[in-house]
Amino acid sequence: MYRTHTNGELRLTHVNQTVTLSGWVQKVRDKGFMMWIDVRDRYGITQLLLDENRSSKELMEKARQLGREFVVQITGTVIEREAKNKNIPTGDIEILVTELKILNAALTPPFTIEDETDGGDELRMQYRYLDIRRNPVRENLIFRHKVSLEVRKYLSEHGFIDVETPYLIKSTPEGARDFVVPSRMNPGQFYALPQSPQTFKQLLMVAGMDKYYQIVKCFRDEDLRADRQPEFTQIDCEMAFVRQEDILNTFEGLTRHLLKEIKGVEVAQFPRMTYEEAMKTYGNDKPDIRFGMKFGELTDLTQNKGFSVFDNAELVVGIAAPGCSEYTRKQIDELTEFVKRPQVGASGLIYVRYNMDGTLKSSVDKFFTEDQLKLWAEKLGAEKGDLFLILAGNEAKTRTQLSILRMHMATSLGLRKPNEFAPLWVVDFPLLEWDEESGRYHAMHHPFTSPKPEDLHLLSTDPGKVRANAYDMVLNGNEIGGGSIRIHDKETQSQMFDLLGFTKEEAQNQFGFLMNAFQFGAPPHGGLAFGLDRLVAILGGQETIRDFIAFPKNNSGRDVMIDAPSAIDTSQLNELFLDIKPIS
Amino acid sequence: MYRTHTNGELRLTHVNQTVTLSGWVQKVRDKGFMMWIDVRDRYGITQLLLDENRSSKELMEKARQLGREFVVQITGTVIEREAKNKNIPTGDIEILVTELKILNAALTPPFTIEDETDGGDELRMQYRYLDIRRNPVRENLIFRHKVSLEVRKYLSEHGFIDVETPYLIKSTPEGARDFVVPSRMNPGQFYALPQSPQTFKQLLMVAGMDKYYQIVKCFRDEDLRADRQPEFTQIDCEMAFVRQEDILNTFEGLTRHLLKEIKGVEVAQFPRMTYEEAMKTYGNDKPDIRFGMKFGELTDLTQNKGFSVFDNAELVVGIAAPGCSEYTRKQIDELTEFVKRPQVGASGLIYVRYNMDGTLKSSVDKFFTEDQLKLWAEKLGAEKGDLFLILAGNEAKTRTQLSILRMHMATSLGLRKPNEFAPLWVVDFPLLEWDEESGRYHAMHHPFTSPKPEDLHLLSTDPGKVRANAYDMVLNGNEIGGGSIRIHDKETQSQMFDLLGFTKEEAQNQFGFLMNAFQFGAPPHGGLAFGLDRLVAILGGQETIRDFIAFPKNNSGRDVMIDAPSAIDTSQLNELFLDIKPIS
Repeated sequence: MYRTHTNGELRLTHVNQTVTLSGWVQKVRDKGFMMWIDVRDRYGITQLLLDENRSSKELMEKARQLGREFVVQITGTVIEREAKNKNIPTGDIEILVTELKILNAALTPPFTIEDETDGGDELRMQYRYLDIRRNPVRENLIFRHKVSLEVRKYLSEHGFIDVETPYLIKSTPEGARDFVVPSRMNPGQFYALPQSPQTFKQLLMVAGMDKYYQIVKCFRDEDLRADRQPEFTQIDCEMAFVRQEDILNTFEGLTRHLLKEIKGVEVAQFPRMTYEEAMKTYGNDKPDIRFGMKFGELTDLTQNKGFSVFDNAELVVGIAAPGCSEYTRKQIDELTEFVKRPQVGASGLIYVRYNMDGTLKSSVDKFFTEDQLKLWAEKLGAEKGDLFLILAGNEAKTRTQLSILRMHMATSLGLRKPNEFAPLWVVDFPLLEWDEESGRYHAMHHPFTSPKPEDLHLLSTDPGKVRANAYDMVLNGNEIGGGSIRIHDKETQSQMFDLLGFTKEEAQNQFGFLMNAFQFGAPPHGGLAFGLDRLVAILGGQETIRDFIAFPKNNSGRDVMIDAPSAIDTSQLNELFLDIKPIS
Repeated sequence: MYRTHTNGELRLTHVNQTVTLSGWVQKVRDKGFMMWIDVRDRYGITQLLLDENRSSKELMEKARQLGREFVVQITGTVIEREAKNKNIPTGDIEILVTELKILNAALTPPFTIEDETDGGDELRMQYRYLDIRRNPVRENLIFRHKVSLEVRKYLSEHGFIDVETPYLIKSTPEGARDFVVPSRMNPGQFYALPQSPQTFKQLLMVAGMDKYYQIVKCFRDEDLRADRQPEFTQIDCEMAFVRQEDILNTFEGLTRHLLKEIKGVEVAQFPRMTYEEAMKTYGNDKPDIRFGMKFGELTDLTQNKGFSVFDNAELVVGIAAPGCSEYTRKQIDELTEFVKRPQVGASGLIYVRYNMDGTLKSSVDKFFTEDQLKLWAEKLGAEKGDLFLILAGNEAKTRTQLSILRMHMATSLGLRKPNEFAPLWVVDFPLLEWDEESGRYHAMHHPFTSPKPEDLHLLSTDPGKVRANAYDMVLNGNEIGGGSIRIHDKETQSQMFDLLGFTKEEAQNQFGFLMNAFQFGAPPHGGLAFGLDRLVAILGGQETIRDFIAFPKNNSGRDVMIDAPSAIDTSQLNELFLDIKPIS
């Protein structure tokens, strides 16, 4: 047996017991006549003691061979420490070592295995197995495990059945790009890896499974933006005989349960906001409502006063940044620079100081009286001491710009508190969005989303106005889940494919199996999928998903640890009937 | 709301309540003045009643439009049935319908949605969403869900962390054939889908995760034998600081827990058998020990008595089939034909009847006295009334043939009882096996398996004799899990790759990341993987895995429901820099 206890386990109650421990050498302090060695495993750190009065010379010498990250097995007696360490659970005791065995030596690690490491991102990824030895990364992975298990328990208790759907499926060019897998047994043909188990979960509803869930890997061959991964994990769910309300209640229940069980946070009923309201109030369909700074529309109040920037704008809209009225000229200039960066794209920033004495002072005093500015203050729900930040221009773009500015201000002001949780539902998404490039409508959610019955009449006349039975769950400014009530009859589904520019053949070829299935008694159904990577990161109070994934890929889709992807043997290519084209 | 209750829920206590139900029409019985409709969902069947005295004419007419598998929503009053049905939980009540809504019509299904269906395999696969509506298939999937969840709970309670490992990894030609995934972002390069997360779970041990598990899809591009799938599911586990004994105890604990929780079966400590013993006693490394018929070796007793078949054989070996002494000549001829089939390949079958009166009568009486036959009886552990079945020939082949015959006899005699469970461990597998075709050794388990320390000296002199720290869990004649203690130092791992015929470059190129990791403080570790599909099928008392998989593929690796794999667009191929070769 390699150990009787773990390194996080021993307490004063164990004093005088003989124990065997195994683990990694974290630190060696050698005072000559005495040595202390910290030995580490997943469960904690235990201090070992050797001293020349009580330990053999041989043992001391052996201990001196130890380097950082050596793997050791020791036996010894638990004794009470003279100088206790209150920072670790085993800090009351140490082990007087009687036997020491080096189980494996270690080269010096390329970065320190400490909570704060000196290793850069690339190096940490290359030696991910060393990075995971660090507490913060390991704890993130254990945290993820806990969230997953809690999700499984909750959904199972609520009647959901975990059904594994296939990974080798059919390529459907709609949506993002598929990863494809050549079939050796069916030469010239390809499987695709699922972007989500969407059609399969719908088929499970047709199959009468009633409530389905799966925690499942999904794949998208997209050009990777920061913090996106080509493979990612979804909590995928579907229910039959439900309306939107049933689904919102079910998954609000799950999320509330997670917040309580995992974070100890009790959350009231989630607010609901229409897509339209979210866009108007926050310029964003995933608003962070941990803080205010709601948009106030100033177009009517500001136009025809001689200020051409406002007069020529489709929309004039602002926020009141709390307690910022005394921002220096330099700070305001920095904000102006921020919104003018190409990534934001505003042409300028108008500001108004709402001073503590009630006076108002703006960068456009030439055009507006203080009384007029008072009306702005009302519209912005401002209080004394606030700083109004106002943008003007094209309606959609200006909203997006102000949303970015709002988030930027919130970050500066420390309003995005990682341990505060403000979930909400955004509902009534548009069914379709117009794509300038292809000159046709795209499904905003996906082609299986059901239009709202009351908007159905607009489908042929004004498709862009049709709202969908689609909803997103938003947490702290991130979309953590989204779903919809699905179409469940062949005619509507077929009409939808027409609208999206599918020919009859394309629709039949790619989704014929689903439309066929709808003819054999499909129940009304709908569902939702959570992005597990993001959900876990946000619950963990962090913004990036990468450290909640054991072996992530970099922004070129490479695993730099194992060096994948890589070239394959010609014999493998031949078996697959494939040639690689010359790459120019 | 589509329903107030499910179709499995209503009892006498609900009488007089107004309820709303939804589901599929299972059956309509129309007596003219009265109609009964069975409506079905995942939870059960409820009987609806309409009669011309109490139901409107309009309602009766609407009900007459219903066909099998129509989806309906009804409201009505729960009433006590006059003729109760004891076979279903809702058999005491029926619903007097007051409202009926057809939620969706259904075409006539291509096969009956009954426990015993008239649909053939191909048709059932093509309309799998209808097949799953049948109780036996749906119950299998729910059973699988229960087993998975129980596994997760048990392993989590025992400190195992569920860590998701990547699906887009690196191709390694050792072992079975990989499915590969061309990378668009890295032209000319490929990912591979994992045959198992083997190297990742070992890296997680190097990373200090201590105990890991995952229920994970794995992929092998093999020519499919019956009851194999190109994608399959493993319960994958790994532990650090363990010896073989720790692993056997841990997973024996899991299996015993599953048998108890899921099947209500208590099983004593699992017997352990060496590979050598299993081969000698059962001719098989996955013996079914629900029954006896152990092999008895008769070579010494039978040679040099003038019977050339025995005299020329490397091995003479038999079993005593219990209670078969009075098999007719015809039955014995059939057994002889059975072993002579090319799939078995024996040249003939010798039999001895051990009659109830204690006399012995054989097909080789010419060469052997009854006293000699008595000695055979002893060797075979036979009792009066048994029939000895004896094969002779090449040692390895004859054992395999007799093993097949033993299983055949057990099946005929009804000894393979689906609800009896006889697990065991087979241990001490050979490390290597000689492959005639390639003229070199192959890893019997995989190249990461650790040799037994006491056999290490044989590695250079007699590699075929080296035993591994490898073990299989066997249940009812099936290998349900297997694993090993791993190599955890670079030198042994490198030596192993040499032995398996890897050049230094190949080893470095394919597994360099693992050997590098071993240099940074790898702990001793080992693990095991269960085949979930098979485990669930056997626990479910069945032999084939296909009906425990929601959407299986056929023997050509095709999903006939969605028609995958299929051709992809030329634009997709171009993006991947691929050409398809002319297929001759």
